[in-house]
Amino acid sequence: MRIIGIDPGSRVTGFGVIDTSGRNVQYVASGCIKTTPNASLPERIHTIVHDIFEVIDRYRPTVAAIEQVFVNINPSSTLMLGQARGAAIAALTTKNLPVFEYSALQVKQAVVGQGKAAKQQVQHMIVQMLHLSNTPQADAADALAVALTHHLRNHTLAQGLGARKVKGGRFI
Amino acid sequence: MRIIGIDPGSRVTGFGVIDTSGRNVQYVASGCIKTTPNASLPERIHTIVHDIFEVIDRYRPTVAAIEQVFVNINPSSTLMLGQARGAAIAALTTKNLPVFEYSALQVKQAVVGQGKAAKQQVQHMIVQMLHLSNTPQADAADALAVALTHHLRNHTLAQGLGARKVKGGRFI
Repeated sequence: MRIIGIDPGSRVTGFGVIDTSGRNVQYVASGCIKTTPNASLPERIHTIVHDIFEVIDRYRPTVAAIEQVFVNINPSSTLMLGQARGAAIAALTTKNLPVFEYSALQVKQAVVGQGKAAKQQVQHMIVQMLHLSNTPQADAADALAVALTHHLRNHTLAQGLGARKVKGGRFI
Repeated sequence: MRIIGIDPGSRVTGFGVIDTSGRNVQYVASGCIKTTPNASLPERIHTIVHDIFEVIDRYRPTVAAIEQVFVNINPSSTLMLGQARGAAIAALTTKNLPVFEYSALQVKQAVVGQGKAAKQQVQHMIVQMLHLSNTPQADAADALAVALTHHLRNHTLAQGLGARKVKGGRFI
């Protein structure tokens, strides 16, 4: 299974691609899609969709996982983030990928083993689990984390609960 | 010029297609894209994108106009509406249509001639201007209104300001 993870954002959309085979997981690619701050919303959406299409055409994932977003204190920011996330999901479904949604809590619980984990702990686990030589950019790391979440939750389900547990940032 | 107007929504997305030639305008088609209330967000987005693709493939518009949306009192509704609107814009830009955004105020000013016009006045003008035999469904009418707004604003600009004025719901 090749999973593409997406961390949506109106300015930066992170993506991460991993390969999984049983409990094994391997890093394939990751990066950030950046939109021009002064561009119109349709132009920014075009960039997000176009670049996600390119990533899909290049790496041919078979399934997609995307982070759920929270409503912001600023309603305009919530609207902007919603539009960017809707565009990202539209790009994924247009390429006929099944799309799974995970909350930040689910990502932290799956990757670090506790829902209150700091961002740094998530990034640390990403580097460890994928044997990376350095920490990816924040949005790319978040995208890899949601891709890993899909793998870990499905692997655990497939093997019966508790086949592989992570607690406090360590395998047990 | 063939214009597709879109009134985005998480449950119902209205669309309207009109042909324009100089100051003349003709109704082509309109309707509503409805999503299943209990479907997941990716499924609903898939429906919106798929159905907009079908409308575009069938009627081959050359330009798109979409209504701007307001932030809602309920932040979750704002997020949902944003995601549906982002998906609709993604569908339009994927089909390489230039997308123009108009606020509800701009639509009312263009179609009825005053920004405080009631929804019924907008619908009345749609029926009059497009010589329709009956009033389209609310979301389809809103979509036709935003398509007409693009036509009226561009025609007025092309002819010099004031070439055709609408005031209080009447041509003057």
